Amino acid sequence: MKRGRFITLEGLDGAGKSTSLEAVQGFLANRGVDVLVTREPGGTPLAEKVRGLLLDTQEETVDPMAETLLLFAARAQHVGAVIEPALARGQWVVSDRFTDATRAYQGGGRGVDGQAIEALACLVHPGLEPDLTFYLDVPVHQARRRIGGGDLFEEREAAHLDRFERERASFHERVRAAYRAIARSAPRVRTIDASLPEDEVARRIVSMLGPFVEEYR
Amino acid sequence: MKRGRFITLEGLDGAGKSTSLEAVQGFLANRGVDVLVTREPGGTPLAEKVRGLLLDTQEETVDPMAETLLLFAARAQHVGAVIEPALARGQWVVSDRFTDATRAYQGGGRGVDGQAIEALACLVHPGLEPDLTFYLDVPVHQARRRIGGGDLFEEREAAHLDRFERERASFHERVRAAYRAIARSAPRVRTIDASLPEDEVARRIVSMLGPFVEEYR
Repeated sequence: MKRGRFITLEGLDGAGKSTSLEAVQGFLANRGVDVLVTREPGGTPLAEKVRGLLLDTQEETVDPMAETLLLFAARAQHVGAVIEPALARGQWVVSDRFTDATRAYQGGGRGVDGQAIEALACLVHPGLEPDLTFYLDVPVHQARRRIGGGDLFEEREAAHLDRFERERASFHERVRAAYRAIARSAPRVRTIDASLPEDEVARRIVSMLGPFVEEYR
Repeated sequence: MKRGRFITLEGLDGAGKSTSLEAVQGFLANRGVDVLVTREPGGTPLAEKVRGLLLDTQEETVDPMAETLLLFAARAQHVGAVIEPALARGQWVVSDRFTDATRAYQGGGRGVDGQAIEALACLVHPGLEPDLTFYLDVPVHQARRRIGGGDLFEEREAAHLDRFERERASFHERVRAAYRAIARSAPRVRTIDASLPEDEVARRIVSMLGPFVEEYR
């Protein structure tokens, strides 16, 4: 059995990952690829419960290292129970976020030491990185408008936002800067201008996906 | 302000930690020591929620590394929000379990690599180890009788037992062996024969605690 391929989508909330994910799934299915779509944090019952802890507005300030370890705990479960078994049986796995998000949000956004994050990545998924990553790059103010956070964050607008979405714009600017740095340094990452209309973003992703599918099948 | 001291109690479920914890707390309070009693996993609202995830019988098998990372995530929150601030303001902290339990249960019991556990300990509590640890050593069959697990584990007896207590005797034997190895190698650990009656165990602990309190106050 030929091992499946691992594709991830990354970007700020409001970058349009969901629409693009559907486009990727549809394109691969049309080409007869057996696809498993999943997400992080989450992807297993336990990992989804950890996601709940991470996104809920807490009564206490969450320690950045505790947050990082919760993400990697969920990831260990997700990789062991879902991603690796799927790849091993030849399925392609498409995940809405993976370790790049931890590098961007906890490393860039929270200031967690990058070497600590890489050490955890080595513990949790030694030898496993995505084969292809689409990074949907969008200015912070545009992403915030899409999730309804407003250009200027105000408490009364935030009731529907999770613990990360509620962070101020400067946090999201650091996350974006970290994502862009990853995109510059990792050849597996394709940067997509996600300020364009959603169908144009999806069209561009699919046009890059075609040659990748031909190459790997 | 003189930094407080950090004391931990370790041992299998059913070793009698709760009774001993009360004895330690009472003894220190009588000597005028400002004591904070806490437990792991837990000790903060978020860490207690992680404890819930860890102890609940899951619908899925929990990956040993995911379990280890959940424990260290809870610990990072506990150390940052509770233990370190208390020690810094001069309180003594008495915790029902700490990283030795991860070394014993996840290292010994689950077979998680010891170097990985030490690397995580370095990330989460660099420079912090207990000043004094009481390890309550008890044969597995006796500990199991005390928690109502029965000499021979049977499903119908297990409804009240958590995910660790439900493990078979061989798991608990490996945990005990790992605890005993830690006790032999770490001078901070005092081994107590916890097969004795509970009040005798408490008396022995308190008799060891006296000189420690005199030395450090």
